[in-house]
Amino acid sequence: MEMLTFSMDVKGKTPLYRQLYKYIKTEIRASNIVCNTKLPSKRKLARHLNISQNTIQAAYDQLIEEGYITPIAKKGFFVNGLDNILSLDLKQVENLKNIDVNAKKILYDFSYHGVDHDSFPFSIWRKLTKETINEYDKNILITSSSQGSSLLRLSLAKYLRQSRGVDCTAEQIVISSGTESLYQILIQLLGQEYVYGIENPGYEKLNLLFKCNNTKFKSINIDMKGMKIEDIEKSRADILCITPAHQFPLGGIMPINRRIKILNWAYKKINRYIIEDDYDSEFKYSGKPIPALCGLDTNGKVIYIGSLSKSLSPSIRVSYMVLPDLLLKKYRERLSFIVCPVPTIEQKVLQRFIEEGHFDRHINRMRNIYKRKREILIGELAVLKNEIEIIGADAGLHLLLRIRNGMSEDKLVKVANDIGVAVYGISNYYYDKSSVGKIPTVLLGYASIPEEDIRIAVKELIKVWFNKV
Amino acid sequence: MEMLTFSMDVKGKTPLYRQLYKYIKTEIRASNIVCNTKLPSKRKLARHLNISQNTIQAAYDQLIEEGYITPIAKKGFFVNGLDNILSLDLKQVENLKNIDVNAKKILYDFSYHGVDHDSFPFSIWRKLTKETINEYDKNILITSSSQGSSLLRLSLAKYLRQSRGVDCTAEQIVISSGTESLYQILIQLLGQEYVYGIENPGYEKLNLLFKCNNTKFKSINIDMKGMKIEDIEKSRADILCITPAHQFPLGGIMPINRRIKILNWAYKKINRYIIEDDYDSEFKYSGKPIPALCGLDTNGKVIYIGSLSKSLSPSIRVSYMVLPDLLLKKYRERLSFIVCPVPTIEQKVLQRFIEEGHFDRHINRMRNIYKRKREILIGELAVLKNEIEIIGADAGLHLLLRIRNGMSEDKLVKVANDIGVAVYGISNYYYDKSSVGKIPTVLLGYASIPEEDIRIAVKELIKVWFNKV
Repeated sequence: MEMLTFSMDVKGKTPLYRQLYKYIKTEIRASNIVCNTKLPSKRKLARHLNISQNTIQAAYDQLIEEGYITPIAKKGFFVNGLDNILSLDLKQVENLKNIDVNAKKILYDFSYHGVDHDSFPFSIWRKLTKETINEYDKNILITSSSQGSSLLRLSLAKYLRQSRGVDCTAEQIVISSGTESLYQILIQLLGQEYVYGIENPGYEKLNLLFKCNNTKFKSINIDMKGMKIEDIEKSRADILCITPAHQFPLGGIMPINRRIKILNWAYKKINRYIIEDDYDSEFKYSGKPIPALCGLDTNGKVIYIGSLSKSLSPSIRVSYMVLPDLLLKKYRERLSFIVCPVPTIEQKVLQRFIEEGHFDRHINRMRNIYKRKREILIGELAVLKNEIEIIGADAGLHLLLRIRNGMSEDKLVKVANDIGVAVYGISNYYYDKSSVGKIPTVLLGYASIPEEDIRIAVKELIKVWFNKV
Repeated sequence: MEMLTFSMDVKGKTPLYRQLYKYIKTEIRASNIVCNTKLPSKRKLARHLNISQNTIQAAYDQLIEEGYITPIAKKGFFVNGLDNILSLDLKQVENLKNIDVNAKKILYDFSYHGVDHDSFPFSIWRKLTKETINEYDKNILITSSSQGSSLLRLSLAKYLRQSRGVDCTAEQIVISSGTESLYQILIQLLGQEYVYGIENPGYEKLNLLFKCNNTKFKSINIDMKGMKIEDIEKSRADILCITPAHQFPLGGIMPINRRIKILNWAYKKINRYIIEDDYDSEFKYSGKPIPALCGLDTNGKVIYIGSLSKSLSPSIRVSYMVLPDLLLKKYRERLSFIVCPVPTIEQKVLQRFIEEGHFDRHINRMRNIYKRKREILIGELAVLKNEIEIIGADAGLHLLLRIRNGMSEDKLVKVANDIGVAVYGISNYYYDKSSVGKIPTVLLGYASIPEEDIRIAVKELIKVWFNKV
């Protein structure tokens, strides 16, 4: 190729070398300059375009680096051969926009997600965060160990011992970002070849998690005391996923003898384990807190899972588990390459929040707030004492209503939705729908809905469910 | 049972009802009070112990709730039968303490992890965080959508278009906490039945990740241009995991024609995909940045992975990927139950950091800092120009040294360690060790080591490697 000519934009923002680079690149891609063409020498092209040789050099360097041309010593610059890019007929992808324009406007939401929005300790959290983002502490730029910050684990171990009766060391704790991510680790740790037994009804995400991990699971029906041993045996499950502190969603507390029976079940075979999700256990409104099942276990068969989603906020994404020694050893051998997903700054803020006593104070405060909300909710429902039955222990952040007004569960939910009140049908939480009870039942969470809204919303519900004012 | 007697501690801190509850519980657990025993009535026991009936009621209530006793109407309180807890002979678990007491003290670390510790934008990050933790913004207490905050995804899409030539929408982006967690999602999304092709040498965690997911993978040898098509075909891999911007660890940039060939390879079968890890692509010290491979893809076959670990800090745990439309659809159908692991507050801080231009400024600043460090490192090594060869493009945060001084790679690393300098043998990054080259090669990262330390450490290395002063 003798010479190249292109229209330079001398006054433009783009440097000349980039204009030249882009021009040659486009010409090569369009096959206007073909393979093995020798480009003009730098000297000649510089003279021709009346620009400096350095500019040409910069353009050629970029082309070399991206692989469009190759310099050959004492010969010059040669264009490389480029393959054509194939083109596929892709199936038309349907419109991906979320279709929720037709969703009813919800004014009052009895969701069981979330926490009371007016009670988050904003000023303390802000203060601790501000102090933590400190240029003299270079450790906040380093990822924590695989299991999470050791100081935070120390604080959590102390909290678990004092508040949940779990006798563990900081070494046994693994910190992660949510219950699902802990289950993800546990599936890898325990093995995909085992059968997991999940509660029916239960936490609706568990079956999705096992499915997308190609892991076998069986749903096991529960009564108000939890899973029955004969059903567990029948299911041939190896690993049980249970919520003994406050079953979700039925709200039962597993009594001591069922706990012992389930522990004994686990002790009978080497591969059996119990995953105890100690979901919303901080909130018990009468009597003494009931220690975690893990505290009864003397043989390293219970994996304890805790979370700050209910006690602080789901948006901080912190959960943790306590591994029995044998599993801890396996974790360290096989999974310690996993990086703890919780940001270092946040781990440090949380550690100080717990260590300086703010967490205990916060929980105690929240216990009173949620107790009051529960009382208001139950109080407002008192006029219906003959038509509805309230299910679940005096604990947690939700309750169930068994309603006898002739409406189906779907209908109960729908008429509530139509007036802007969100309640949740219990059948959503059944994996095996054939076990759904005969009496229509809805779930009402009361953590995030304000007190005043509870009063208004229940009055509205009574109107549409019972025609009462 | 006629009556119960126990030693009360009237002046103690523990309330009387708890003392009574604990005493009865212990007696039941020890079988001193057996199944079906009727406990004394509240009235009688209160008179006997000279305490109020309410105290007895509180203790009995707690025992009922935990399942130790059952109230029977008009009959009284009866002790439930408890199973014995089995005991197992567990194998002695070896001492789990980390054994690193014998590790040499490292004074100068050429690790490729981490970032420059003096350049993190502490004051801006602190200011933005302080402003974000705001009691009037209740959204920070709510988890973001499964794919992450939509505002942050908008900012990232804009950044990717402008800086990396990736033409994507915010809808296509999934935010998660680190490259590993993105791969975890991808394995679930693409399926465990496919064979993943990984670079040899390459990122050392990938094979561990596939192993613990029971997912098949093949390591594919690379040259300075990346994987060769014939090797890819031979491996029978379906999905390639590659680092075209700056191969880790060899440091090559994939030239345009290899890019086209690899795209065409992917276009030939419906299940083929390319996972492009755009690892440390922000740092290129000469010429123009080379657009991501994803930008060339017209058929939705490249999954782009980006991370803020190198450009901001690994401790903030933020990474993201761009899904082609078909995979996005599948993600929404099957995996949208996954909660984004990045805390809501941090997502908001990061979004403002990018949107207000701090991120661009930070990258530009860091590019100069790292360029200077690289120049210092290369400058200090210049005296060895006949004995060592520097490998890798003028980019990224590490370089490789091929060293001909008669020492093996292990020996090079060991003598450096002995004087407190950490360098890393290239063979660590080979999954298939049979492909390790013949010339001993070590990796030197220069992101986190201070400039002055580079000068000192290289002088020390020259001493022990070449006996020169």
